[in-house]
Amino acid sequence: MNLTDLVGRPVAAIDTPALVIDLDAMQRNLERMQSFATQHGIRLRPHAKMHKSALLALRQMQAGAVGVCVQKPSEAAAMVAGGVTNVYVSNQVISLPKCELLAQLNRRLTAQNGQVSLAVDSLLGIQRIAQAMATQGAGSCMDVYVEIDVGQARCGVPPGQAALPLVQAIAQHASTSGSLRFAGLQAYHGRAQHLRSAAERRAAIAQVVMDVQRTKALIEAAGFAVPLVTGAGSGTFSHETASGVYGELQAGSYLFMDADYAANEADPQQPQFEHALFIKSQVMSRTARSTPGAADERAVVDAGHKSHAIDSGLPTTWAGHGADWVYSNGGDEHGILRGTALPELGDTVWLVPGHCDPTVNLHSHMLGVRGGLVQGSVEEIIRVDARGALT
Amino acid sequence: MNLTDLVGRPVAAIDTPALVIDLDAMQRNLERMQSFATQHGIRLRPHAKMHKSALLALRQMQAGAVGVCVQKPSEAAAMVAGGVTNVYVSNQVISLPKCELLAQLNRRLTAQNGQVSLAVDSLLGIQRIAQAMATQGAGSCMDVYVEIDVGQARCGVPPGQAALPLVQAIAQHASTSGSLRFAGLQAYHGRAQHLRSAAERRAAIAQVVMDVQRTKALIEAAGFAVPLVTGAGSGTFSHETASGVYGELQAGSYLFMDADYAANEADPQQPQFEHALFIKSQVMSRTARSTPGAADERAVVDAGHKSHAIDSGLPTTWAGHGADWVYSNGGDEHGILRGTALPELGDTVWLVPGHCDPTVNLHSHMLGVRGGLVQGSVEEIIRVDARGALT
Repeated sequence: MNLTDLVGRPVAAIDTPALVIDLDAMQRNLERMQSFATQHGIRLRPHAKMHKSALLALRQMQAGAVGVCVQKPSEAAAMVAGGVTNVYVSNQVISLPKCELLAQLNRRLTAQNGQVSLAVDSLLGIQRIAQAMATQGAGSCMDVYVEIDVGQARCGVPPGQAALPLVQAIAQHASTSGSLRFAGLQAYHGRAQHLRSAAERRAAIAQVVMDVQRTKALIEAAGFAVPLVTGAGSGTFSHETASGVYGELQAGSYLFMDADYAANEADPQQPQFEHALFIKSQVMSRTARSTPGAADERAVVDAGHKSHAIDSGLPTTWAGHGADWVYSNGGDEHGILRGTALPELGDTVWLVPGHCDPTVNLHSHMLGVRGGLVQGSVEEIIRVDARGALT
Repeated sequence: MNLTDLVGRPVAAIDTPALVIDLDAMQRNLERMQSFATQHGIRLRPHAKMHKSALLALRQMQAGAVGVCVQKPSEAAAMVAGGVTNVYVSNQVISLPKCELLAQLNRRLTAQNGQVSLAVDSLLGIQRIAQAMATQGAGSCMDVYVEIDVGQARCGVPPGQAALPLVQAIAQHASTSGSLRFAGLQAYHGRAQHLRSAAERRAAIAQVVMDVQRTKALIEAAGFAVPLVTGAGSGTFSHETASGVYGELQAGSYLFMDADYAANEADPQQPQFEHALFIKSQVMSRTARSTPGAADERAVVDAGHKSHAIDSGLPTTWAGHGADWVYSNGGDEHGILRGTALPELGDTVWLVPGHCDPTVNLHSHMLGVRGGLVQGSVEEIIRVDARGALT
């Protein structure tokens, strides 16, 4: 069946495995997050590396988001191709061809009152983007953020003094060619998002905020304005917001949620989000019913780690099943359910992926369902525009 | 840059991250495996779920393979679309639309002296494929294998008596409509492939062979011929071959190899294979050189678990670097290298994926390089035809 033929048909018509969005739940998540940002007077720039869909990025922007983040220039290109006019690459880029692509995209969007912006953490990175702007960005200016490492231990310079030479290098390009502008600080603590207790997350971000304040003060003391601090994720954004130092939130997972975020202790300061992303799977092998409860009793579904990412844990089964089935990994194409009252051959099993971002990356399309997973029907097919956009 | 523009260009022109095949190493692997099968008079039916490429499937068949295996009907369709005429779905299929697709493909290939065949482990599975053959397979017959569970604890009926009702059900369709044929037993012990010691792998397959022999004898005693036993993987195939019971090998990973298979103790009875699949990555963030050897010193490459699967462990770094760098997971888009004499910003780092099959699934293309990873150039672009073929 052609995918578009599914539109208007009941959920039962969806072949398995398939990536399904509960559109009602997604819409509530979208509104909750935007309401939070609006109420607190902070900009929302959702991370589109999560859904990888220009259509969903545009919906987030229509609701009030200033633009989206991505991690890769090819993701930025996919967003721009889909009509998104404000994209921030919250990551380092060293290769010159990639920098040239960003300069071209920024030049194009500048003409539409939009922009592509970029994070840096090295003098070489600044030199490369400046070189690309000189040949590909004529007449436009790129906003550049200096990334500081606030606990992720990945990219970014250490908070404090190390940021200053980068700010100065950007400022030099700003004053000579006008091709770059120092736009502020990138400060994202990824690890803090999944600290399980709300108190741990709050404490981690308190440290982050101190590091950001110290770095910001130091840059300002050197005579440079710090227009914006951008960062935060779905696990901690209320704390970055409360700090008064951050001006922009980059949360992405809130839109779909996943099993990993659901394992966090709820934080009374944050709005709660619902699972909106599911894998529809089918039982395609089943041990004999004559041995219920036997140690080896299992139901095998047709969704393995080629259907969902397992970097942040295995999927859980949808609460709507009202069952205690435990999913274990059966390889690329299989999942093995154990528990009581296991589903039978041919039955549908809904899985909640452990981690939404790389799960979406495994699919070419998401099937948007309206009216719930049981009674609902397919309302729209949402293309994963930036699927496999690795470069 | 357009991908096809890369053909003829040096390895340095490949943007990162990218999936690269060392064509020289791959060719040696291909020949070693086919020579083994030919020498031992056993059929080779490589698992195309590994490379997902019709082009590579055809090369394996040109070298002597009888056809290929896949796990999913949509993978079979991708292979057939690419010109492969003999495809075995070594997995269960319950959904009727999927069975109808298989019946259509088989009918089409039958006219070309080819076939699509299928594994079953339930009466419902037999009923569904028979139903599909009745409406979509007119005039053709499908080979059906009964899967027995020889230690994987996933699909398949237990060895022995449980296989008989399935054989009988297939035989009934064979005698009434002629739409199905009992083609033999599917017996694959996936877990045995990665038992680290050669002795453990040998012992595991010795048990498998006993289970297969017992089941085969029981079916034959009931009056049914067992034309073929098919199974085995890249970790154990010499043992299945030596058993005299298996008539067909399904090994797939031998063509590319991966870090997980490389961690196995070499088995003197098996030919050895070389790493032929690599991720080209680039250092895009680097802690300051002023603190070499500091606890936090790291080089961050632009390849994370969106570039390579991590279900069977993280990638290792290519031996050709002559370095002791250890890769740790930095998320979807980042990998973090620690060790001595770490590479510098902008340097190329070659990674060996932990598991080849799902790694290939993350890429739309593989770049075939001739002449080595350092001095070589791009010879061909190999499309991943069955990428994301989940259904």
